[in-house]
Amino acid sequence: METKVSSVTQEVVIADGQPTVLIGERINPTGKKKLSQALKAGNLEIVSEEALAQVQAKADIIDINMATAGVDEVALLPRAVQAVMNTVDVPLCLDSANPQALAAALKVYKGKPLINSVSGEEHSLGEVLPLVKEYGAAVVGLLQDDEGIPNNPERRLAIAGKIIDRAEAVGIPRQDIIIDCLACTVGADTSAGLVTIETARRVKAELGVNLTLGASNVSFGLPDRDLLNSAFVAMAIAAGVNCLIVDVAKVRPMVLAADLILGHDKHARRYIEAYRQRQTQ
Amino acid sequence: METKVSSVTQEVVIADGQPTVLIGERINPTGKKKLSQALKAGNLEIVSEEALAQVQAKADIIDINMATAGVDEVALLPRAVQAVMNTVDVPLCLDSANPQALAAALKVYKGKPLINSVSGEEHSLGEVLPLVKEYGAAVVGLLQDDEGIPNNPERRLAIAGKIIDRAEAVGIPRQDIIIDCLACTVGADTSAGLVTIETARRVKAELGVNLTLGASNVSFGLPDRDLLNSAFVAMAIAAGVNCLIVDVAKVRPMVLAADLILGHDKHARRYIEAYRQRQTQ
Repeated sequence: METKVSSVTQEVVIADGQPTVLIGERINPTGKKKLSQALKAGNLEIVSEEALAQVQAKADIIDINMATAGVDEVALLPRAVQAVMNTVDVPLCLDSANPQALAAALKVYKGKPLINSVSGEEHSLGEVLPLVKEYGAAVVGLLQDDEGIPNNPERRLAIAGKIIDRAEAVGIPRQDIIIDCLACTVGADTSAGLVTIETARRVKAELGVNLTLGASNVSFGLPDRDLLNSAFVAMAIAAGVNCLIVDVAKVRPMVLAADLILGHDKHARRYIEAYRQRQTQ
Repeated sequence: METKVSSVTQEVVIADGQPTVLIGERINPTGKKKLSQALKAGNLEIVSEEALAQVQAKADIIDINMATAGVDEVALLPRAVQAVMNTVDVPLCLDSANPQALAAALKVYKGKPLINSVSGEEHSLGEVLPLVKEYGAAVVGLLQDDEGIPNNPERRLAIAGKIIDRAEAVGIPRQDIIIDCLACTVGADTSAGLVTIETARRVKAELGVNLTLGASNVSFGLPDRDLLNSAFVAMAIAAGVNCLIVDVAKVRPMVLAADLILGHDKHARRYIEAYRQRQTQ
């Protein structure tokens, strides 16, 4: 199954057996004081700089999230999308829990974006799916519903089925839905990582859709987060996740190693090229 | 299923859901010029030093391999086993393709050792399994037979079945067989890693035995081998491998990260303890 997203000049394809697609996560004010302050002041220069840095680090898609206290997302998200489109050529991921902000961003976006996200919650299904359909976008589906995030693969799988059914019912093709099995920190519950990995295997085997993951949540609150994130990323790719929302500069070497081991990098071309680039830096 | 191996004073248990057991691979002259020369001279001081260093790096078991040109394994393997038993308290893995050398080492070993290895080759099954039975040892079964190493999971699984059947036929209990699904380098064939991972999943699901892996072969001939080995180790543990033959000092941080993510490290105790030790070094 192929999920295609695009900018005016570039198309990115997410599919099994292909190199893992990397979505740059860094344009997100959560936990970033300097970025939050700039956004509150309406200053988008740092957003453009961060977009450029992530594309130079080989991000395939850039995620844009403006959600922070004191910011009007409905006004700022489309401005940020415009600023990033003016700076880089890659497709964008419009990231908001606010349907009005998504609608405003979709109006200015040129190409086929990824929307991040819909969930199994009724208000989200009802408000976001019509936007996805209207603009012909692709969408990330989060495996939580009105009762929260289930702590077992069976119930997460059921939410994935519900999101796909509801999306298909409004005319969104299955290949435009990318399921995020949700990473929760193993610092709070040591069963959390396995639940995510098992859910990924089952959603892939039983529903066949493409999978994404905001992988770094797995290590929240623990020391040496890069080490835990690396282990988790390798396991996630082996479980069928073919698109990651991550800090690309940090995570890409491990992703290329995992892709090579799993046969997604013929003749080790991408792995060796990235190794040579690291040697000359 | 629990595989138990022991020295006079320590028992190591290999089982699903438990921390991954680490077998130190470094007492092996392959590719090690200094060690080869010492062994040819009959000098075992370096062997004892290496055993101690690996136990200090938290190896659970020490592998001892004396196979190099100009060395009489039948004479030297028992001497090396004795030297290591005099130096460290952990159980040992007696590593030779020569049944006479294994027999000589088994005569001096005190406890229940791991024998590395039997394969699906007729001469190996016929000569090694009786030794395993006679001494009540555990054994590593390599998934190759008289036709070589199959390049698909189906045929490797069939060899695993054959080794287990033949072992049980001579009275070796299934829990004393640990299958090594064999890592081949992705530098020669980019399908090699996936074949190993898929074989591990199938052997675990269909035969239920414990699994080991000499993981570092996967990266032979490629740059940044530690990166590839790390990715492979994380995937292997997620696929059900619960015992690794590795350079323990290098690989243990990634193994502890994988164990934590997969729920094999309650309250993250081992992960955090190892992190603190790295900080004080």
